[in-house]
Amino acid sequence: MEKNLEPGRHLLYMEWYTGGDVGLFMKMNKVLYSAQSEYQRIDVFENPELGRVFSLDGITMTTEVDEFMYHEMLVHVPMFIHPNPKRVLVIGGGDGGSTREVLKHPSVEEVILCEIDPMVIEAARNYLPTTSVEFNNPKLKIVNENGAEYVRQFENYFDVIIVDSTDPTAGEGGHLFTEDFYKACYNALTENGVFSAETEDPFYDRAWVGIAYNRIKSAFPVTKTYMGFMTTYPSGMWSYAFASKGLDPLKDFNPEKVRNFEKLDTLKYYNEEIHVASFALPTFVKKLIGEK
Amino acid sequence: MEKNLEPGRHLLYMEWYTGGDVGLFMKMNKVLYSAQSEYQRIDVFENPELGRVFSLDGITMTTEVDEFMYHEMLVHVPMFIHPNPKRVLVIGGGDGGSTREVLKHPSVEEVILCEIDPMVIEAARNYLPTTSVEFNNPKLKIVNENGAEYVRQFENYFDVIIVDSTDPTAGEGGHLFTEDFYKACYNALTENGVFSAETEDPFYDRAWVGIAYNRIKSAFPVTKTYMGFMTTYPSGMWSYAFASKGLDPLKDFNPEKVRNFEKLDTLKYYNEEIHVASFALPTFVKKLIGEK
Repeated sequence: MEKNLEPGRHLLYMEWYTGGDVGLFMKMNKVLYSAQSEYQRIDVFENPELGRVFSLDGITMTTEVDEFMYHEMLVHVPMFIHPNPKRVLVIGGGDGGSTREVLKHPSVEEVILCEIDPMVIEAARNYLPTTSVEFNNPKLKIVNENGAEYVRQFENYFDVIIVDSTDPTAGEGGHLFTEDFYKACYNALTENGVFSAETEDPFYDRAWVGIAYNRIKSAFPVTKTYMGFMTTYPSGMWSYAFASKGLDPLKDFNPEKVRNFEKLDTLKYYNEEIHVASFALPTFVKKLIGEK
Repeated sequence: MEKNLEPGRHLLYMEWYTGGDVGLFMKMNKVLYSAQSEYQRIDVFENPELGRVFSLDGITMTTEVDEFMYHEMLVHVPMFIHPNPKRVLVIGGGDGGSTREVLKHPSVEEVILCEIDPMVIEAARNYLPTTSVEFNNPKLKIVNENGAEYVRQFENYFDVIIVDSTDPTAGEGGHLFTEDFYKACYNALTENGVFSAETEDPFYDRAWVGIAYNRIKSAFPVTKTYMGFMTTYPSGMWSYAFASKGLDPLKDFNPEKVRNFEKLDTLKYYNEEIHVASFALPTFVKKLIGEK
């Protein structure tokens, strides 16, 4: 499997989107890893355009070349709203991209990465160096637990909780889309607590955008959907939920904090204008969450 | 060809993106039209998720279900900036989606749709009723000419020019990406003239975003890149250029005009917040156009 193919020949990866009528295909130049864990099938392969591609149950999780779009939007929107985030919990996110972004914030003292599947952590450590780059950071603790159960141990502890889950219909992802889970996140957060979660694409998977939004809204006093481009996810258009115990993602946003961010030159997507703009929703997305 | 296939069987349409390593595939439930014109291969087929799909030289131009994202962003951004657009030229856009959006503006008296290929117009008339819906509108004149030559006949005539071209590397699309063409558009515009053009995707086709932007900038005193989601175009993330003889797409934007737009309830993407937000660019796109 690890040999390059002769020119003109290729193996093809095909991800059929929800509905089963459209999808993305990628050449697989080299398959680096392919295994079945207790929870899901894990694959890592190389594509000439996208670099290393990491897939769970045939659903693309990250590609080396575009993962920054997703991870920066999922992480920096909540991180720049909390005035002083010290303790952060990332649920899911076993590739490490989200924790890499969290650890760019100098106020952070402790990050827990709760990834249910130890084989994902190992695959990331061995084959995804650009996302797992901070796995040995002393501020980071990796636990392999069910995130929905793990978060219940905490009360008034985390400043920020980030849900970097797989699809609700894949593997164990569904646990991370329940009302009970969102309420446990609320309880685990401190007074100024801030939360973000990926909430699927509003085109092929449109039902989930509204379901996730409304469930999160039932647990938090402030809930807002925001969006960003994400090339290799279905439709290229990704939705996220911001939620908090009171902080507003626009009124409490201080662009100067972004301008003065020491690691600003490492960001390829997020900037102060994008933060604000990402909360402007196309009309059809507003309708999905019942806003219009 | 016009028979539905038995369950479990399907024909597959595969669009390989620039670079040739990644692409989108769609089931073809029914092929409605397939022909070679003087300029390009034209195909129209049905997909259960996307409705009717219209393709030129194997590149997806519109799908019934998501074309609104592209057409609304290409058209309404310039149309809402011009204070009183009466004469509008659409170059390319043979499917009719752009002229349909233009004709929603009550000030419009004359629209010229300059589509080089009469067979595209015929295909749209016969197989794409949702985009060609205004082809018999008395305000609309359809001409089959090379847009780059056609526009040279006019001086100080159009209030708005919209370039709804195919890819610069496909068919005759390249003519519509030259500096000479953009200068001819400038000359054809009235004093308050406003211009928009599609300028490709900043991921797979990233070189063209910068090339088009800089060529347009050499012809117009005001040039700004803006962006929108576009599900079935490469990367799902589409770039457009706004240009004008002086009007600014943000400073001269009056959100009240959008709120009071009689046809507002027909718009599924564009709204007053999206207009402003679309000019916020991800950092890597800023770099492509030399902004940072």
